Amino acid sequence: MSKKKEFVKEITNIDEDFAQWYTDIVLKAELADYTEVKGFVTIRPYGYAIWEAIQQYADKKFKKHGVKNLSMPVLIPENLLNKEKDHVEGFAPEVAWVTMGGGEELEERLCVRPTSETIFSTMYSKWLSSWRDLPFLYNQWCNVLRWEKETRPFLRSREFLWQEGHTIHETEQEAQKFTLDMLEVYADVIENLLAIPVLKGQKTKKEQFAGAEATYTVETLMHDGRALQGGTSHYFGQNFTKPFEVKFQNKEGEQEYAYQTSWGISTRLIGAVIMAHGDNRGLKLPPYVAPIQVVIIPIAQQKEGVLEMAEKIKSNLSEKFRVELDRRDNYTVGYKFNDWEMKGVPVRIEMGPQEIEKGEVILTRRDTFEKMPVKMEELEKTLEKLLQDIQQSMFKACQKRREEKTTIAHNMEELKKNLEENQGYVKTMWCGSVECEDKVKEVTGAPSRCMPFEQEHLGDTCVCCGKKADKMVVWGRQY
Amino acid sequence: MSKKKEFVKEITNIDEDFAQWYTDIVLKAELADYTEVKGFVTIRPYGYAIWEAIQQYADKKFKKHGVKNLSMPVLIPENLLNKEKDHVEGFAPEVAWVTMGGGEELEERLCVRPTSETIFSTMYSKWLSSWRDLPFLYNQWCNVLRWEKETRPFLRSREFLWQEGHTIHETEQEAQKFTLDMLEVYADVIENLLAIPVLKGQKTKKEQFAGAEATYTVETLMHDGRALQGGTSHYFGQNFTKPFEVKFQNKEGEQEYAYQTSWGISTRLIGAVIMAHGDNRGLKLPPYVAPIQVVIIPIAQQKEGVLEMAEKIKSNLSEKFRVELDRRDNYTVGYKFNDWEMKGVPVRIEMGPQEIEKGEVILTRRDTFEKMPVKMEELEKTLEKLLQDIQQSMFKACQKRREEKTTIAHNMEELKKNLEENQGYVKTMWCGSVECEDKVKEVTGAPSRCMPFEQEHLGDTCVCCGKKADKMVVWGRQY
Repeated sequence: MSKKKEFVKEITNIDEDFAQWYTDIVLKAELADYTEVKGFVTIRPYGYAIWEAIQQYADKKFKKHGVKNLSMPVLIPENLLNKEKDHVEGFAPEVAWVTMGGGEELEERLCVRPTSETIFSTMYSKWLSSWRDLPFLYNQWCNVLRWEKETRPFLRSREFLWQEGHTIHETEQEAQKFTLDMLEVYADVIENLLAIPVLKGQKTKKEQFAGAEATYTVETLMHDGRALQGGTSHYFGQNFTKPFEVKFQNKEGEQEYAYQTSWGISTRLIGAVIMAHGDNRGLKLPPYVAPIQVVIIPIAQQKEGVLEMAEKIKSNLSEKFRVELDRRDNYTVGYKFNDWEMKGVPVRIEMGPQEIEKGEVILTRRDTFEKMPVKMEELEKTLEKLLQDIQQSMFKACQKRREEKTTIAHNMEELKKNLEENQGYVKTMWCGSVECEDKVKEVTGAPSRCMPFEQEHLGDTCVCCGKKADKMVVWGRQY
Repeated sequence: MSKKKEFVKEITNIDEDFAQWYTDIVLKAELADYTEVKGFVTIRPYGYAIWEAIQQYADKKFKKHGVKNLSMPVLIPENLLNKEKDHVEGFAPEVAWVTMGGGEELEERLCVRPTSETIFSTMYSKWLSSWRDLPFLYNQWCNVLRWEKETRPFLRSREFLWQEGHTIHETEQEAQKFTLDMLEVYADVIENLLAIPVLKGQKTKKEQFAGAEATYTVETLMHDGRALQGGTSHYFGQNFTKPFEVKFQNKEGEQEYAYQTSWGISTRLIGAVIMAHGDNRGLKLPPYVAPIQVVIIPIAQQKEGVLEMAEKIKSNLSEKFRVELDRRDNYTVGYKFNDWEMKGVPVRIEMGPQEIEKGEVILTRRDTFEKMPVKMEELEKTLEKLLQDIQQSMFKACQKRREEKTTIAHNMEELKKNLEENQGYVKTMWCGSVECEDKVKEVTGAPSRCMPFEQEHLGDTCVCCGKKADKMVVWGRQY
């Protein structure tokens, strides 16, 4: 008996133990698997195909903004990491060190990149000389390592895949604009490809990237009401270009330090897709990112003509859609239904002798389980519209949940109560002090998510200290 | 003055010092650059775009064969590396070791992958149970590390980018066929995309991959007559599946070890493109892989209407071709010609007030420097054909050189003489003994390239020992 039989074993109830539900889905849908190295996972083909779809979509958008890809070394000498004070403090505790190579102890240990600001800055310093050379708009798709204590597939892994864009510009204004342009790309990826609405804003000083002037974020909300940071874009000013001597002759003929940005999204987004959309039947994939958009399940497949017709439908649809035909003869139709539902395929096509006779097939939506017979000649057009519909209703379902799980609090009592009852986002006014931010986190377990770009006036006093406040902040427990 | 001015400094003569010519091109065409970590390079955007073209082309072909991408951990525990005896002997001396993570000494040191047979085999053992699960056809695009003593950008670097495909199959026959199918994909990439003819064959035992049963190769010949291994595909039999316990229940209900393959091409191919096609003007890129296929150089660009027309041409051509318009106003036209020739752009378009009046532009081929005026309305069609032409003639030029540099030898005297006078490939008969192979390499500096699939009968005696021989081998000094 095949191991595959285990697929339909019960999945943990999503509302009873969301963490275990998540692990079940990751393993059973074959998105990722644990390896012999603690904290490192294999991203299996079904999970990796989601990443490929994200890569393709985002890479095209980056290139429209003039970004070019390159490849920087995976190892960074210790002295480079040490050059920017906040940066090294932020990252040194969680790096992995290579100390031997080619059978010999190295003179200087090399860290496996946790992020590559230091190495980009070093090369930029070598390549830049005149304002005419600017901007440099470069990006790499690569792996990075961060030695986390607690790990979970996709969400927090010692190795993850990401893209890291690093740009330098002639002026502060241009760099700041680019930082926000890239945040817009991330919002586009997450909303339009992954069907998850985002909250855009600026991170507080406490939560910003080690070494940044400003960090902007797109925040997402998961099934259980916890937040997940979807992507961040950082404006560095001259924080790196000064210690790394990234300077240029400006239009006035003077030497000036360039203005820098960096921005990244990672395989965490696969975790977001799982946790934003999944349900008790398993994974639920938005059609635009689904590795398989349509699965064909033949009924009574041993009967003459059934598999032939199924193959024909598959081949007709394959030009426009990502289609799979389940020809397995050692599983029941019922098993196959469960299996593909668990794998989150947006649309199922059933067809057997009866349907062939009527010249139709039965479509079933994964999101609503609504069934509909469709005439063969209408199939392609119906599917196209159906996939669009599913994409949109999945987005709307997330939006609705977010609305339900967004509350307002005026004092610590309300803030605590809202989070305990409802999780989600809580909006409050905030005085801007780290002390209050620390206290809120200590008392409620919720760090600040961001200061949303769309500010609202909810009062004039800080949720924590009661002093004068003019910023609105959103709080929420997080992944 | 910009650093860019240095571009047109003399390039070392290609026939006087090919090694220095190569380094000049790599740096001046901005394909790669040295970094602060010895033996590690940055692949710059212009070089990386070549890699992206190779990736796109090859990935599509792999997927047509049913291959799926995934991602395996970058770190491999020492005990896994040690499981296959030949493999560890081959790779252990040149790996880099991570010994610290998260501020602590690790219990077991982890090597940065030099290749991933061990980790794939471990996961395959976990995932495989029945013949129904087979084949597993998986690949990853990733970075690997090999701590080489002597390094050169693209050709031999401590870190390089590659794809490594790893498959397991139900039968020996199927695995062997797949090994050769992937070799055909490599031949396709190198011949049809990179315009370099390949020699296909099997590596001798001495030259095969550490742990393989058989290694197949596509060999290429460079400008100076030295060979470069373009890609290899390995058949492992059960060499890894036995120690790693990769077994399945076969159709007879018995436990059986799976049959395995692996295959890879890397960023070395960028080195091959440089060295197979380049000349004294610099890089010469085959149109299908060129990041910029057509460069537009406006003449007298300060005159009214010139830049506007140039932009219009660019935008008209951009749908079909990869086009760049050189608007720089601080360089002469002559400088720009040299610069883009050095960067190997296949076609240059010149246009100024005169051409605008005549309603035409001047095209210049990078490979032959042939110039031709073309009417504006014919431009798109002419370009399409011209790029095809250039691709084909570049392939033919390499083919012609290969013919000229392929000789036959019957004894050691001839073999030595041929290599000294002509470099290139030398075909000989060979008895099959490692002793003779070692001696040939010692005396001539040329290892065996392969036993070509297309065997010829050149006599009955071994080139080295004079004993009976029925195999034809090709020898050649290599990169």
